Amino acid sequence: MVMKQSIVLRKDLKMGHGKAAAQASHASCDAIFEIIDSNKKDWKEWLDLWKKQGQMKVVLKVNSRDEIEEIYNQALQLGLPCSIISDAGRTQLPPGTITAVAIGPGPEEIIDKITGKLKLY
Amino acid sequence: MVMKQSIVLRKDLKMGHGKAAAQASHASCDAIFEIIDSNKKDWKEWLDLWKKQGQMKVVLKVNSRDEIEEIYNQALQLGLPCSIISDAGRTQLPPGTITAVAIGPGPEEIIDKITGKLKLY
Repeated sequence: MVMKQSIVLRKDLKMGHGKAAAQASHASCDAIFEIIDSNKKDWKEWLDLWKKQGQMKVVLKVNSRDEIEEIYNQALQLGLPCSIISDAGRTQLPPGTITAVAIGPGPEEIIDKITGKLKLY
Repeated sequence: MVMKQSIVLRKDLKMGHGKAAAQASHASCDAIFEIIDSNKKDWKEWLDLWKKQGQMKVVLKVNSRDEIEEIYNQALQLGLPCSIISDAGRTQLPPGTITAVAIGPGPEEIIDKITGKLKLY
């Protein structure tokens, strides 16, 4: 079973490259902490397998807050580990702006139900 | 004590934005796994404190493989948790290209000895 993590960024915010990379990293790490801090055995197995398989990550884009919230809600509904990032608003963006979501690591075939049609960032 | 993680990307590779974000995320997560998989009590305290403080990350740039390797070696010498990322070479770059380094989470005053003069990516 192939494991991956999808990282979704908002393209409509026109973040600088470094800012986008930082938000992606926040989302990616937070989803991993979600797994580590949980007591879900399947999530922990997914994490271990993903690490063994080389930690596949894809960075994808959406164009609105509505879209990224919808994706996050779908991940919750499917019982996937996920994170949503609100920017502290110290640079570039107003405080509370939602910038990024990460889904997984988890089975690619489940994650693709949510992010399979999104384009690369 | 303020904790942070510095993520260093190679600007000379002219990676696409999504590629750069993925490499930053790889480096960021790998440095965290380095801590979790270690038996170093101080590193684990730094990680916990960094999480409580809001997980400060900065994304910085260098312009060559030599520079990024030098930064990684300095982090090792100072006993900091760190990671170095070689790209698998499936897209955009030749296999084995070094793309990113993460240092920390750890004390800002120590990390800044290495990355304090680097510019934002």
